Amino acid sequence: MAEPRRPLFLDDLKVGQRFETASLQVTREQIQAFAAQFDPQPFHLDEAAARHTFFGGLAASGWHTAALTMRLQVESGLPFANGWLGAGGTLEWPNPTRPGDVLRVVGEVVDIHPSKSRPDRGIVTVRSETVNQDGKVVQVTTAKLLVFRRPAAAGAG
Amino acid sequence: MAEPRRPLFLDDLKVGQRFETASLQVTREQIQAFAAQFDPQPFHLDEAAARHTFFGGLAASGWHTAALTMRLQVESGLPFANGWLGAGGTLEWPNPTRPGDVLRVVGEVVDIHPSKSRPDRGIVTVRSETVNQDGKVVQVTTAKLLVFRRPAAAGAG
Repeated sequence: MAEPRRPLFLDDLKVGQRFETASLQVTREQIQAFAAQFDPQPFHLDEAAARHTFFGGLAASGWHTAALTMRLQVESGLPFANGWLGAGGTLEWPNPTRPGDVLRVVGEVVDIHPSKSRPDRGIVTVRSETVNQDGKVVQVTTAKLLVFRRPAAAGAG
Repeated sequence: MAEPRRPLFLDDLKVGQRFETASLQVTREQIQAFAAQFDPQPFHLDEAAARHTFFGGLAASGWHTAALTMRLQVESGLPFANGWLGAGGTLEWPNPTRPGDVLRVVGEVVDIHPSKSRPDRGIVTVRSETVNQDGKVVQVTTAKLLVFRRPAAAGAG
C-alpha cells in the first residue's frame, strides 16, 4: 500500500504476474460474529463446544476465510480498473483459520483468455493462496475474473 | 423446519438425494454492510455508483451470496450429524443477488466416496443452486463435504 496503485486493464496483465497483499489479523470475536450470522455451527461459535469436534478448537467458517481473502485482494491485490469481478472459481481449505491468525494472500495470474465475441474484455484466472503467520495455507482459490481492456485500445480494435 | 430433523450420517445418504432449504430475504443494508466489511467495491456499496458499472445497480458481493447460501444449508439443508464440514468445492455466480431478493437453496447429493484409509468417514459431493424469488440462479455450488459414519457402524466395521 506504500506506492500508488495504477489501475490495471486486460492489456496490462501477463501470465505469471504475481502479487502479495497486505495482512490482517482475525479475532475470536470476529470469527464468532461471522459464524452467528452465516455459519452457525458449534465449532465456529464456541471454544468449549469446538474442542470436541473435528476441529479440536474454535475455527473460522471457511466462508469467513473466503470473505477476508476477498477483502485483502480488493484492498491490496491487483488493482483491476473495473474491480474484482468474479464469475466463479474453486476453493479449498487445507487448514482452518484460528483466532488471532494473521492472514495475507499470495497470488498469480495463471491464464488470460480474451473473449472472442466481445473484444473489450476477457477472463483472467488468478490462483491464490491465503496463508497465516506460520506459512500454513488456509485457502487455495482459483478465481475466474472478468477484466476489461483499456477503453482506447478497445476503440482502436 | 416443520418436522424434527434427524441427524444424518454417511450411511443415511444416497446419490440422488435432494433437499430444499427455507428462504430468507436480503436487504440493501445487509448487502452494503457485508461489502463494507469484506468486499468494499462501489458496485456493492452504493446504488448511484453501481449504476455506472457492469452490474447496472447495487449487487451483493458473491461472497455474501455464498455466506447466505451456507446459512440456509446449515439451518435447513441436510442435517449432517457432524455439521457441514466443507473441504472445498466450486462456485459460479450466473446472476447477481439484488436488494430485496428472497433466496433459497435447492440441492442434491451427486457423489459419495467412502475413505479407504479411514473407514469412519467419506467425502460427499453436494451440488446446489441458490435461486431467487424469480427462479433465477444466483449461485451454483459443488461442495465436497466430510461426513462421518454412524459410530456403531464404524465400531462394527
